[in-house]
Amino acid sequence: MKNFIDDDFLLSTACARRLYHEAAANEPIFDYHCHLDPCAIAENKTFENLAEIWLLGDHYKWRAMRANGIDEAFITGNAAPEEKFFAWAQTVPRLLGNPLYHWTHLELQRYFDFYEPLTPENAGEVWKGANEKLKTISVASIFDKFNVFAVGTTDDPADNLAYHKQIAGNMAIKTKVTPSYRPDRALGIEKSDFVEYLGLLSAETGIKIINFNKFLSALSVSIRNFDDAGCLVSDHDLPHVFFEAAHNGSKGALWEEEVFVLFAIRLAGGKLTVQEAESFKTFTLCYLAGEYRKHGWAMQLHIGALRSVNTRMFGALGANTGYDAIADNNIAAKLSTLLDTMEERGNLPKTILYSLNPKDMYPLSALAGSFQGGIAGKMQLGSAWWFLDNRDGMETQLKILANTGLLSRFVGMTTDSRSFLSYPRHEYFRRILCNIIGEWAENGEIPSNWTFLSELVRDVSFGNAKRYFEKGNG
Amino acid sequence: MKNFIDDDFLLSTACARRLYHEAAANEPIFDYHCHLDPCAIAENKTFENLAEIWLLGDHYKWRAMRANGIDEAFITGNAAPEEKFFAWAQTVPRLLGNPLYHWTHLELQRYFDFYEPLTPENAGEVWKGANEKLKTISVASIFDKFNVFAVGTTDDPADNLAYHKQIAGNMAIKTKVTPSYRPDRALGIEKSDFVEYLGLLSAETGIKIINFNKFLSALSVSIRNFDDAGCLVSDHDLPHVFFEAAHNGSKGALWEEEVFVLFAIRLAGGKLTVQEAESFKTFTLCYLAGEYRKHGWAMQLHIGALRSVNTRMFGALGANTGYDAIADNNIAAKLSTLLDTMEERGNLPKTILYSLNPKDMYPLSALAGSFQGGIAGKMQLGSAWWFLDNRDGMETQLKILANTGLLSRFVGMTTDSRSFLSYPRHEYFRRILCNIIGEWAENGEIPSNWTFLSELVRDVSFGNAKRYFEKGNG
Amino acid sequence: MKNFIDDDFLLSTACARRLYHEAAANEPIFDYHCHLDPCAIAENKTFENLAEIWLLGDHYKWRAMRANGIDEAFITGNAAPEEKFFAWAQTVPRLLGNPLYHWTHLELQRYFDFYEPLTPENAGEVWKGANEKLKTISVASIFDKFNVFAVGTTDDPADNLAYHKQIAGNMAIKTKVTPSYRPDRALGIEKSDFVEYLGLLSAETGIKIINFNKFLSALSVSIRNFDDAGCLVSDHDLPHVFFEAAHNGSKGALWEEEVFVLFAIRLAGGKLTVQEAESFKTFTLCYLAGEYRKHGWAMQLHIGALRSVNTRMFGALGANTGYDAIADNNIAAKLSTLLDTMEERGNLPKTILYSLNPKDMYPLSALAGSFQGGIAGKMQLGSAWWFLDNRDGMETQLKILANTGLLSRFVGMTTDSRSFLSYPRHEYFRRILCNIIGEWAENGEIPSNWTFLSELVRDVSFGNAKRYFEKGNG
Repeated sequence: MKNFIDDDFLLSTACARRLYHEAAANEPIFDYHCHLDPCAIAENKTFENLAEIWLLGDHYKWRAMRANGIDEAFITGNAAPEEKFFAWAQTVPRLLGNPLYHWTHLELQRYFDFYEPLTPENAGEVWKGANEKLKTISVASIFDKFNVFAVGTTDDPADNLAYHKQIAGNMAIKTKVTPSYRPDRALGIEKSDFVEYLGLLSAETGIKIINFNKFLSALSVSIRNFDDAGCLVSDHDLPHVFFEAAHNGSKGALWEEEVFVLFAIRLAGGKLTVQEAESFKTFTLCYLAGEYRKHGWAMQLHIGALRSVNTRMFGALGANTGYDAIADNNIAAKLSTLLDTMEERGNLPKTILYSLNPKDMYPLSALAGSFQGGIAGKMQLGSAWWFLDNRDGMETQLKILANTGLLSRFVGMTTDSRSFLSYPRHEYFRRILCNIIGEWAENGEIPSNWTFLSELVRDVSFGNAKRYFEKGNG
Repeated sequence: MKNFIDDDFLLSTACARRLYHEAAANEPIFDYHCHLDPCAIAENKTFENLAEIWLLGDHYKWRAMRANGIDEAFITGNAAPEEKFFAWAQTVPRLLGNPLYHWTHLELQRYFDFYEPLTPENAGEVWKGANEKLKTISVASIFDKFNVFAVGTTDDPADNLAYHKQIAGNMAIKTKVTPSYRPDRALGIEKSDFVEYLGLLSAETGIKIINFNKFLSALSVSIRNFDDAGCLVSDHDLPHVFFEAAHNGSKGALWEEEVFVLFAIRLAGGKLTVQEAESFKTFTLCYLAGEYRKHGWAMQLHIGALRSVNTRMFGALGANTGYDAIADNNIAAKLSTLLDTMEERGNLPKTILYSLNPKDMYPLSALAGSFQGGIAGKMQLGSAWWFLDNRDGMETQLKILANTGLLSRFVGMTTDSRSFLSYPRHEYFRRILCNIIGEWAENGEIPSNWTFLSELVRDVSFGNAKRYFEKGNG
Repeated sequence: MKNFIDDDFLLSTACARRLYHEAAANEPIFDYHCHLDPCAIAENKTFENLAEIWLLGDHYKWRAMRANGIDEAFITGNAAPEEKFFAWAQTVPRLLGNPLYHWTHLELQRYFDFYEPLTPENAGEVWKGANEKLKTISVASIFDKFNVFAVGTTDDPADNLAYHKQIAGNMAIKTKVTPSYRPDRALGIEKSDFVEYLGLLSAETGIKIINFNKFLSALSVSIRNFDDAGCLVSDHDLPHVFFEAAHNGSKGALWEEEVFVLFAIRLAGGKLTVQEAESFKTFTLCYLAGEYRKHGWAMQLHIGALRSVNTRMFGALGANTGYDAIADNNIAAKLSTLLDTMEERGNLPKTILYSLNPKDMYPLSALAGSFQGGIAGKMQLGSAWWFLDNRDGMETQLKILANTGLLSRFVGMTTDSRSFLSYPRHEYFRRILCNIIGEWAENGEIPSNWTFLSELVRDVSFGNAKRYFEKGNG
């Protein structure tokens, strides 16, 4: 019987253990997609207590606490930080089998040198000990400790990137911190605040958005601004996959003309049909793809989040508070046409396709394989994400990718995290990766050649991401 | 090499073996959802022969026999019971890898002390020996032997529950046997016998259903009657998930008005469109949900059965004869709106979401997690059901639940069975559960703390169901 | 640590090893569905070099090379055969975890006695050695070496089957080579060359297709011709599943009348709506099913290929060049109605249902189980195919089949291959099969009775296919 989360956690063969300890563990982290707060990085934030750094904003934990019957007061309510921490500690022993159980203890071990299972009984000791340690911890010290080579935050096109400029000037931050371009609001023509948003975009880009052409120009300017700030990657949230061309299906000049008119209608306060809105979105996304390609950026499509499904709690707490779910729309046909349209125009950038629904992984990977060409691994099946970011989900993603594409070209783990305590999830991913490869080698399914296997592990841990995202690799 | 289905069947680690034998095996059974016949329970039925208790009405076995090329005469036809049993015995060796193979032998072992693989060669011996044993077996003796704490049958709102009253008065039946509320016919407004059904409901509730309001009142009366008879849980068969509000999408007063009119049209012999029928169903289901919540019942939604697909055989044999399949509709968006509508009105009861299609498990579990709150484990991902009620299906369900929710709060196994011989399926489930947890512990993925793990196993085997279903836990 | 792909490759238990070596390995191959070229068989083709026999037309390898960033010139372009082989050898070490890695080395071992992992370093040696060996290899020698009992090629109804007649007269070919009937073009009423195709069908059958009745007659004649040439099986490519009856839903005489008119419109150069085209296809497919049944053929439905998604590359290279993907449409409801319609008319033949999307496997298998009856295993869940033809995909298919139907009646592996080097994939499949069964036996989940288990393995390897496909078993 193995000890609970020890050095060889998740590593079931000698080969896996060697791969992890000698090849994976010491690779830097290329955290190419997360939701870390640029302001917190810029000011090299420190943390008051364990509740602030561990529970605040962490809707994964909030869901678990709700499922455990914890009163909302101790989750997002008025309870004191310490009380919230104790409510969490009360929930932890109920999490056996959940990735939160592993993450929790990896984080306690790596950040706070605490090696026991967290229980209500030892919660007091943890609270005290961790708060003591926190006095020596800042964002910069975390980046250093975990050897974080690069961080890509998630930012709006209308953002002035002031924090990123400040970060660039903060010598304490040795990690390369770059913005990532997430234009969801710019595509959200159906949203009530769309026109208001155009105002923000105008203000930031200096382009008066009086029509669709000006809108595209403003986007291009914002992309240049992001590029100047080191941006390497964009990101789109696609709850479902859309594809609408002109009303008669044309993808030619008529389409652009129609979208021009639709934009004018919306600008004038008119309302579009769903199909019209999607025609606008499709055209704009294809345009953006071309811009990304031009700048050598990768494009991320995050598909299938069903957001804020609980109206009552959305009213009380707003978005990103633990009330999201997994959509199950059909995606293959429209995504295929979308990528094909980009490809036909020579506009398809490096692309990473994620879905929140495991049923999509085979179709996504097969589709990615139909648009490869140029650089190695141009089209990527994105890592297991959010609800799938667990051992089984990661194994599934890694094996589907391996079976239908090139695991060896995979850019690897994305945390998608809002927390500075999430870096051990890279360790978690690497252990799972090494375990799979080690098992293949022990079983004679792949050659047990150290150079060969350790290179694979290093590439997927860090090398591929570095080569893939860094400029000049478009 | 392990012996065929011995004491340590399915238990691959020492920890799993201890968990099963010391914690799981002796827990009572809370059989909260089945299709056992209340009449058979009331009369403490005995059985003529092995064919009657084992083959009659068991469409799982019938399908296997048909797939094996057995003539229908030996399945549902005129062949003698003994001949049917021999046709089954001929099929059994062809079932390697099918859960029926395991169930068959667990049942032979537990009920009839027969420990060999059943083959055509020893079928005669089994027939004779089992029939001899059957002389000492009755429903009550089965309930006692398997420590069945409670049984929830499946009953129509128009049922007079006479058998349940009779059971309550039968001292031989020590198990708590309660009706469960399954109003599929009450929602079946598109069915040709809907108006006829309203007559039955009127007769039983004493409420003349002259309009939609009276219909809702009659449902409420039937719910009170069921509640008086100890009902703890309702059940709905949703081949696909529907959600239709008023024609303009409104969920306000207009919706109720429209449904009132639709009901009148149907009552007058008119026909509704599919959308109209679903508007009625949605409204009524939301109403029922509120009633369930009021009474502290749980609501079960069984999604995705594609029923009676073989018209020729349906004509010959009717429903529930082995001609059902698995639907593959998209369910997330509409189910999300359905639950949200209940939640907004404060009407969402404890809910168990099942699907017959494994692709739905991730979306269901994520959705359940978005409506948690109040009691621990309020929203449940239902156990692997029917076609999924096999080792791989159960493992998948348990792991998806663990990864996305709280396995420790799971109410556990449902047999959904029509047979008094199905109780070893609880054993089957518990072995699989213990095996997973044992493996986690042996691998150091969870602490190997006996109190901790044995409590988890006891809770999922019995304790959670008891706490979840029993009154006062709404 | 096991050696790389040795004798016991993929066999993790003693029972699995014995089953493979003593029961499976020596069974003949019944290659009932492939895309081997009848002309190459007829002329007992030999091969110039390793690039010709290994890379030409193999779009699986092409995709892998593109994903690895290889320039198209070295894939389908003007590079010399040797250069293309070196580009492939450069890609191979990048394929860890992909079935191509296993297939590649099984093929190098079995055909060319080369037992090392292929790398750029030893590529020269392989090129020379394999080309030398190729001098002694022909189609007939391959068939002999792999004990290929039968081969079913894939042929158009308008094919004159001249090569098949030639093969029948070629004494060097001891394998039974039969055509298979693939009428995709005959159903392709929406295609621009449909009328032109009718000309070919007329010419071959001698029936002037002046209306729909004559069209059906021509199909029947072509079926008789195929039957005379030994055809045992048909095959349909269904990118999505369609079912359309008459415009009012009728499946009676009206439907046929409508289709008669639709056919006339198309013949006259008119255009049909999607629904009209599908009404024609549905009717015709149901007709064909009856014909297949009459001749004792099996019907294969290959569902879910999303073909030629990359318009730019389709323009450059045409179809079947590595630009296909996986569809994700809902299939259960329509497929159910389609099979039911055939069954109601007494026209449902032996049927094999394949899908390219793993999400379809449970619904397909459950549906198959609802139309069983007559011969054992009449309805089959087809083997893991194309993108799923990997270890995990095969295991998934085998386990879903076992859980929901009768693995023991499975007709087994289909290569679906275009290459004469693919026969080791049967070995691959058999090893995976034996490994699963061996594991069950070692764990005491099935009896470890040699006769019992070895018969199962032999049946799935060869015996079932022989019994299933050979005439007189309808």
